[in-house]
Amino acid sequence: MSELYAARRTRLRDRCAATGSTAALISRPANVRYLTGSAPAGAALLLGPAADVLLCGAPLTGDPSEGRPADDIRVTVLPARDGDPVVAGADLAAQAGATTLAVEEHHLTVARHRALGRVVPRLRLADVACAVEAQRLIKDDDEISCLRIAAEITDQALGELLESILVGRTERHLALELERRLVDHGADGPAFATSVATGPHSGRPGHLPTDRRVEEGDFLSVGLGANYRGYRCEIGRTFVIGTTPADWQIELYDLVFAAQRAGREALAPGVECREVDRVTRHLLESAGHGERLGPWTGHGVGLEIDEDPQLSPAAMGKLDACVPVTVEPGVHIPGRGGVRIDDTLVVRPEADGGPELLTITTKELLAL
Amino acid sequence: MSELYAARRTRLRDRCAATGSTAALISRPANVRYLTGSAPAGAALLLGPAADVLLCGAPLTGDPSEGRPADDIRVTVLPARDGDPVVAGADLAAQAGATTLAVEEHHLTVARHRALGRVVPRLRLADVACAVEAQRLIKDDDEISCLRIAAEITDQALGELLESILVGRTERHLALELERRLVDHGADGPAFATSVATGPHSGRPGHLPTDRRVEEGDFLSVGLGANYRGYRCEIGRTFVIGTTPADWQIELYDLVFAAQRAGREALAPGVECREVDRVTRHLLESAGHGERLGPWTGHGVGLEIDEDPQLSPAAMGKLDACVPVTVEPGVHIPGRGGVRIDDTLVVRPEADGGPELLTITTKELLAL
Repeated sequence: MSELYAARRTRLRDRCAATGSTAALISRPANVRYLTGSAPAGAALLLGPAADVLLCGAPLTGDPSEGRPADDIRVTVLPARDGDPVVAGADLAAQAGATTLAVEEHHLTVARHRALGRVVPRLRLADVACAVEAQRLIKDDDEISCLRIAAEITDQALGELLESILVGRTERHLALELERRLVDHGADGPAFATSVATGPHSGRPGHLPTDRRVEEGDFLSVGLGANYRGYRCEIGRTFVIGTTPADWQIELYDLVFAAQRAGREALAPGVECREVDRVTRHLLESAGHGERLGPWTGHGVGLEIDEDPQLSPAAMGKLDACVPVTVEPGVHIPGRGGVRIDDTLVVRPEADGGPELLTITTKELLAL
Repeated sequence: MSELYAARRTRLRDRCAATGSTAALISRPANVRYLTGSAPAGAALLLGPAADVLLCGAPLTGDPSEGRPADDIRVTVLPARDGDPVVAGADLAAQAGATTLAVEEHHLTVARHRALGRVVPRLRLADVACAVEAQRLIKDDDEISCLRIAAEITDQALGELLESILVGRTERHLALELERRLVDHGADGPAFATSVATGPHSGRPGHLPTDRRVEEGDFLSVGLGANYRGYRCEIGRTFVIGTTPADWQIELYDLVFAAQRAGREALAPGVECREVDRVTRHLLESAGHGERLGPWTGHGVGLEIDEDPQLSPAAMGKLDACVPVTVEPGVHIPGRGGVRIDDTLVVRPEADGGPELLTITTKELLAL
């Protein structure tokens, strides 16, 4: 594994050198983890000009959720009272002879950036921009394996919930139970705050669980995902409680399902991101739900639950093979409820069988 | 309640006016909530020069954990594809005739700050610095009521756990159960990631739960807290599993308990923050544990679980009445385990009976 992280760092170093920076200081946690295998809270990675150093504000905890730094990374734990690892990293870069230091301007606050300027006034600060995020876009086999396991855990947790009695239980309890099951099946934790939405809440994106209880006739929509070794996936399903769904429920479900299928089927290397969004959105807009749609219908996943690419009308760029994304249209009708269907898939060329579906729980409209 | 939020905003407006800013743009979530009653994800508050406007990137969800904006706040939901509420707020300030806009440089990233400069080039950007954090330091009666309820919920959740069978259960399960109980008793959620540490893990600050099971003879240390209407408190306790604690366990427990009591007793208006840290730390250092102590022995709590003041050797400033803080010394002996004891208290003058203890679970060394 160490070679893998070293190769990622070399790629970034080459890029920084090409733009005139002899050193880079990475502070965004997911980027630090991508380049070193570990992201202790608040840590910063100094890349060159001498050895690569992971500067930590506190000793590593050894918790699995923190990951473990690659063997060839020098880990420096700052004395407890010594302040900001970012400032210490800049200081170290200057001592090692760097003249220009590239930092993550999209992560550092203005106040921290200014503190760097004060501590190392002779170091020129440049912007590494989203160079690491760009590297993270296309996943390698190890990353996709982690996502597959995360999805498997997620399907298991959801499957078990479906076998239990739901009527009368609150959204909060169902969400906590799902999170417990994720952990039982080997997740480091939930990938994001589990969403359970019943009745009039159903179909709301990112709905946070309340004390409302599941009732007969409700739509029940859930959104959850496992975090496995830092990699996060996402599933969303909507069910109906009781024996026979009402006509409006079947109609709305079929519509969202058709939209989600259209989006999934549009995934292919070379396809524009906004084209996938357009085909997903199109059916829902034609049915008069245009105003009820969110700003995007899918997004990348990986070390963060919401990363590039975005599937939205304004998105630039095209999909590549080995990019994992969600396809997750939903419609929420205020006062009534709604439907969300969400899968995590990996973009693959036609020759390899097309998009690889990671979250395989059925998308039939189940009556529970 | 609306008057309360209006008064807070007036105080901030006056301060900004005194430093030459005709408008302020607040983006740090806890600060937005303090000034408006609500902090939808990513929202920004524009204060003057015309009406106060809460700019949101998405419709309010109505979730209790999000709070509710005061009646006199104008809420503007940006069209879904319109981007950053901070940029929209700066634009609005310029349209309303502001010439200088104070922003939170300790919250905005360099990249976002630069985007503001591009969108409203004629607006001078100033720094509001930590003005809102300074206002938040001393809590009013409503805030202390919320903290009291948060502490009551926390004590209940912990008390119930102590009555259940612990041996053989994993840290992860105990942590999830504590979080479920917090919610059962009325919390909006946990105030921070619940920590359950057994055996060799015990006493580690912020230990994240693993699959290790509770064993006879273990120290078990837990850290948890409820979030009630946005206000967060904290408790930490250490227990022994089995009937008779070992001598080293009793000795270490008594030592940490004495240190924690010394810290609690030192809390009074006018006392230097570093003095409280010094008396807490002193006993542990004398016993040879100096190297094992963290950078601080307590901190403020409120809308964030870790806010000013910090109780640390380098802390500047003095305590005031109505400032809630934690006192939480701990010693972890690698390979063996350790003890943490943590309370949330409100600083009160001697005449009012001295510090008010919010977390009242016993600090006797219980054998469970």
